[in-house]
Amino acid sequence: MTPPTAAAVIIGNEVLTAKVRDENGPLLIRRLRDRGIPLRWMATVPDEVPAIAHAVRHARSVADVVFTSGGIGPTHDDVTVEGVSVALGVPVVRLPEIEEVVRRHREGDVSDVVLRLANAPRGATVLEVDGSWFPALGCDRTYMLPGVPELFKLQLEAVLGLMPGVPVVLECLYVSLGEPEIAEALDQVAAAFPDVALGSYPHFKRGLDYRVKLTAEHVDGARVRALVDQLERTLPPGCIVRRERG
Amino acid sequence: MTPPTAAAVIIGNEVLTAKVRDENGPLLIRRLRDRGIPLRWMATVPDEVPAIAHAVRHARSVADVVFTSGGIGPTHDDVTVEGVSVALGVPVVRLPEIEEVVRRHREGDVSDVVLRLANAPRGATVLEVDGSWFPALGCDRTYMLPGVPELFKLQLEAVLGLMPGVPVVLECLYVSLGEPEIAEALDQVAAAFPDVALGSYPHFKRGLDYRVKLTAEHVDGARVRALVDQLERTLPPGCIVRRERG
Repeated sequence: MTPPTAAAVIIGNEVLTAKVRDENGPLLIRRLRDRGIPLRWMATVPDEVPAIAHAVRHARSVADVVFTSGGIGPTHDDVTVEGVSVALGVPVVRLPEIEEVVRRHREGDVSDVVLRLANAPRGATVLEVDGSWFPALGCDRTYMLPGVPELFKLQLEAVLGLMPGVPVVLECLYVSLGEPEIAEALDQVAAAFPDVALGSYPHFKRGLDYRVKLTAEHVDGARVRALVDQLERTLPPGCIVRRERG
Repeated sequence: MTPPTAAAVIIGNEVLTAKVRDENGPLLIRRLRDRGIPLRWMATVPDEVPAIAHAVRHARSVADVVFTSGGIGPTHDDVTVEGVSVALGVPVVRLPEIEEVVRRHREGDVSDVVLRLANAPRGATVLEVDGSWFPALGCDRTYMLPGVPELFKLQLEAVLGLMPGVPVVLECLYVSLGEPEIAEALDQVAAAFPDVALGSYPHFKRGLDYRVKLTAEHVDGARVRALVDQLERTLPPGCIVRRERG
């Protein structure tokens, strides 16, 4: 099975105002990468329904599955469920499965405010999460994960467990010339291998033995090797410092 | 002078595929915060003209100034200038000011590929940057900064120097109850101070003396103090651990 493509929406004024450095986006990037699920787009938006709805709608248009982070608690600034509902064009409803979980967990103290935790876009389903009393919430390929990093991590693993993955093969070539000197060769090779992702990353630090790191990646290792072989033939002679399977 | 609002577009497959952890977004968030320039939206997109154009167009619709990071070198995957040009509805042209800088810097080696560095959206202007041979490139309130963190930082400071700033006042209240127990009081206070940003951040770690951190911020310190005073009166008695000017 081919893995799905993914997009993500990080929700929170605290991130945009530098009160908290977002760790969920970087974690999501790494874990999707581990599973060979391509991440196509990621946005950070404020705790505002129209901003969330717009971002989720766009994310759903560019990827198969969407992850949101944050804004699903019971306080006034938790408006992710509302934003996702607007994006999906469905009303917010109370989900009996979550209401039951909340009542059990809170042992009776279930004011209206607390029961906001059981709100969900109509059509949402829940997924039990090992190590967490609160389930993960998904609706039509959009997963609403909590912003608290410990909980985000637990729920993310539960959701990823639902998806097929395939590892990506990566090779790196380190070269001693700058980008201007190799750009023409890169153009040629990139045109010959349109299906393989070819990246070029210069650094501007002292004390390294190379000037640009080139990367090639694809699910098919043979395509990656073929591209890097052709790079070795096409780049100016003598500029290759080393080749690495990364 | 009121500071402008900002939005940002981080461009790069290397970020979305976990080959590089983006440092420019977090730096931008901190520096905008220092200057009191509100960041409204930030996206990370692949090295693809339509994705960049779409993100820049949206960024320009939600904020006064837009920063892009990455994709302005001379290689095949550097397509930011093209993406921004599409977003602005102008053609890509060669900028004589940059061409001159490139010719001087490269001492004669100015192939067509190298001169891609002098491409810009029509109407772009350049800004000299202390400590960098390459100028910062801006076009109609959109600034195209390089992805290499050392260069991004230099150019960002040059661009920020153009903008008026005003410091934001922040106060924090640490409380010993969880969000469900304080959500009702927060609702009341948030409704009474719609102009002040009120944040609520629970943690789920052991060994801390509070359960939720509340934040209030505004450019007017008197509004912040008034809100926190009212929180102290409205929250359940005895739950406040401490109040801090942050």
